[in-house]
Amino acid sequence: MILVRQEIGEVLRDLRQQKGRTLRQVASRASVALGYLSEVERGQKEASSEILASVAEALDVPISTIMRQVGDRLSVLEGLQTFPDVVPDELVASVEPELSLR
Amino acid sequence: MILVRQEIGEVLRDLRQQKGRTLRQVASRASVALGYLSEVERGQKEASSEILASVAEALDVPISTIMRQVGDRLSVLEGLQTFPDVVPDELVASVEPELSLR
Repeated sequence: MILVRQEIGEVLRDLRQQKGRTLRQVASRASVALGYLSEVERGQKEASSEILASVAEALDVPISTIMRQVGDRLSVLEGLQTFPDVVPDELVASVEPELSLR
Repeated sequence: MILVRQEIGEVLRDLRQQKGRTLRQVASRASVALGYLSEVERGQKEASSEILASVAEALDVPISTIMRQVGDRLSVLEGLQTFPDVVPDELVASVEPELSLR
């Protein structure tokens, strides 16, 4: 089953790292516990809409950008489920840890 | 504050109505309580990733499609927050119930 929270976590972590910020910096600015943000990034906790809005603001990224990136990632994963043999290997390698297709 | 769950609810309801299905039909097929699905559609409850996946499947809509539509709706709302005076009135009217700008 494809889980939205895993893709939200990946997108939040990617954006944070692209901006060169630490978990501690973003958690502090968003007023969320560091351990909680870490669990959200690893796809282990569902972030409430309020937390998502705070983290997006702390990252200086519109929440629409985050959700569109989530949609794009989900689309790739759905392609892997539907056509596992026609997706390029390098793409499979980059998302495979989140799947249990093989 | 722009809340993702409100847009998820709107998208789920729009898709369900486009397909001419009742709350009862979708709730039954997704194995979720009717009252719960109704609250999710009204943006009052956060849907877990597992529930979202079940409802998407019950609607025969990829979860990527749902999240991309959510991203598009959030983008319109962000435009309203940033440039409230340049957004066409008909667009304001269609999303205004979810905002508290005025």
